[in-house]
Amino acid sequence: MLIVPEREIADLMTREAAFAAVEKVFAAMASGDAYNFPVVREAIGHEDALYGFKGGFDRAGLTLGLKAGGYWPNNLDKRGIINHQSTVFLFDPDTGKAKAMVGGNLLTALRTAAASSVSIRHLARKDAKVIGMIGAGHQAKFQLRAALEQRDFDKVIGWNLHPDMLPNLEEVAAEAGLPFEAVELDGMQEADVMISITSSFDAILSAGQVAPGTHIACMGTDTKGKQEVDPQLLAKATVFTDEVAQSVSIGEAQHAVAQGLIAEGDIAQLGAVINGSHKGRASDEEITLFDGTGVGLQDLAVANAVVELAVEKGIAIEVDF
Amino acid sequence: MLIVPEREIADLMTREAAFAAVEKVFAAMASGDAYNFPVVREAIGHEDALYGFKGGFDRAGLTLGLKAGGYWPNNLDKRGIINHQSTVFLFDPDTGKAKAMVGGNLLTALRTAAASSVSIRHLARKDAKVIGMIGAGHQAKFQLRAALEQRDFDKVIGWNLHPDMLPNLEEVAAEAGLPFEAVELDGMQEADVMISITSSFDAILSAGQVAPGTHIACMGTDTKGKQEVDPQLLAKATVFTDEVAQSVSIGEAQHAVAQGLIAEGDIAQLGAVINGSHKGRASDEEITLFDGTGVGLQDLAVANAVVELAVEKGIAIEVDF
Repeated sequence: MLIVPEREIADLMTREAAFAAVEKVFAAMASGDAYNFPVVREAIGHEDALYGFKGGFDRAGLTLGLKAGGYWPNNLDKRGIINHQSTVFLFDPDTGKAKAMVGGNLLTALRTAAASSVSIRHLARKDAKVIGMIGAGHQAKFQLRAALEQRDFDKVIGWNLHPDMLPNLEEVAAEAGLPFEAVELDGMQEADVMISITSSFDAILSAGQVAPGTHIACMGTDTKGKQEVDPQLLAKATVFTDEVAQSVSIGEAQHAVAQGLIAEGDIAQLGAVINGSHKGRASDEEITLFDGTGVGLQDLAVANAVVELAVEKGIAIEVDF
Repeated sequence: MLIVPEREIADLMTREAAFAAVEKVFAAMASGDAYNFPVVREAIGHEDALYGFKGGFDRAGLTLGLKAGGYWPNNLDKRGIINHQSTVFLFDPDTGKAKAMVGGNLLTALRTAAASSVSIRHLARKDAKVIGMIGAGHQAKFQLRAALEQRDFDKVIGWNLHPDMLPNLEEVAAEAGLPFEAVELDGMQEADVMISITSSFDAILSAGQVAPGTHIACMGTDTKGKQEVDPQLLAKATVFTDEVAQSVSIGEAQHAVAQGLIAEGDIAQLGAVINGSHKGRASDEEITLFDGTGVGLQDLAVANAVVELAVEKGIAIEVDF
């Protein structure tokens, strides 16, 4: 039984390893080799916490297990620790024995960033130059950093409900030697690639604020009722997702499907593009939209990768369990 | 973060501690202080394994977490390890951080035995003398050992589909200095207390084979389709259970409810008897039946108890996680 504590993850895990793990498991999901279990998510009636389990099995990668944890909104104020708390547990699919326990906080940020990054690699125009960010919180920095590696961008533009957070984006742009510009939502028409990463419950971006040929990754909507973009944008775009069942129920597509603007059958798995069974972007004018809902298999994939890295570097704690 | 490996459980955990933990959490469930999460149970399509999660939260005992694992039918033949493999993970309900990891194999056997034992303490006649066992496998020994502590029994009788396993029961009876007698099912009318613990998919015991005044704990039915007793017995008996929702869907009561012989509202929680909000047995002639389906909170309760014992004895492995 191997243990990789949260504090070790930052030095072990790379964006490249997270990207490779998430790309591979998306492909496995689309080819039927990997599937997610039903999600358990409970408001436990204590500390206003949301707690639950996201599990799955990847038959190709032989990765079985779950991420357990959730959101404790009072952690930061009361205890000075982050509100999102999670742990990944891996099991040996040959025997059912517990195999590894891995801190899941940073991994969750990295796997979410990797998902939009994988969508950009496979769906954005090759000549994309301007990346637009909607949302400038802690997670937005992860998304932007991973995204910047996928194309030869020459400018970052950004919008946030509270403009005082925009320096978060400027900081990441500066790391990559790129200029940053704060824009109004109409200014997003300049973007070739966009990422929305907010906790919004109302559409922020209208369909007209997205130029032809744009790839947009909607990463904030992971719950019934959340929403980042005008459902008309999904009608206009070719829609891809990590998992169709989640996309139509708790993802960005829930609203367009509920309004009859698109049907479940109109949504393709990003993994199918990775596998080559879906051709992906059809033209330079097409808008492609990735609805990133977040699945347990992503967590298992990055946790498995970090365990391998920890073993290689002699950092994994071994417990005779 | 504390770890209690499987190998330590046998020396740490006592039947008394398991009994106390299960009795307390049944009471908490009935008073609305503790609840079980939806169960995830998946045939993963690898090694014919069944894998899943049983979680819950006990607000009274501040116990939060899950048991993960399942059934790997090839383990024993292929690898010489037991087929049931599970691990319990406890979380701090104040913060969401992982708190403890505990081997769940022996604990599962002990908490299942504790459940029928709790039902006997609260529902069997005080003057019960003969205990009848239906089923004589590995788990039957746990059930019998725990049951024998609850009344001043003077004889054990038993039946098993394969009579060559009956020496299992004889062995436990002998430990307690009691005679054992193998009987036909009709002979079960001699029993004052009965426990059925089989993997049957058809009724074994008919209603006429149970004498007035008997308490019977049906412990084998935990899945749709499984069945140990004639549904008419449930119509005749006063039915108690650990969790009503499980009792009517995957427990012994599923058949009587499906046939309209009893309704969900006829089934009481054993915890209500423990709490005193249900009077329990009404007369010496009443047949009481406990439908033990097995809930995640039982696993969390015994795991929590064993962690406390391991800390007291300095056996818990502490990992800076």
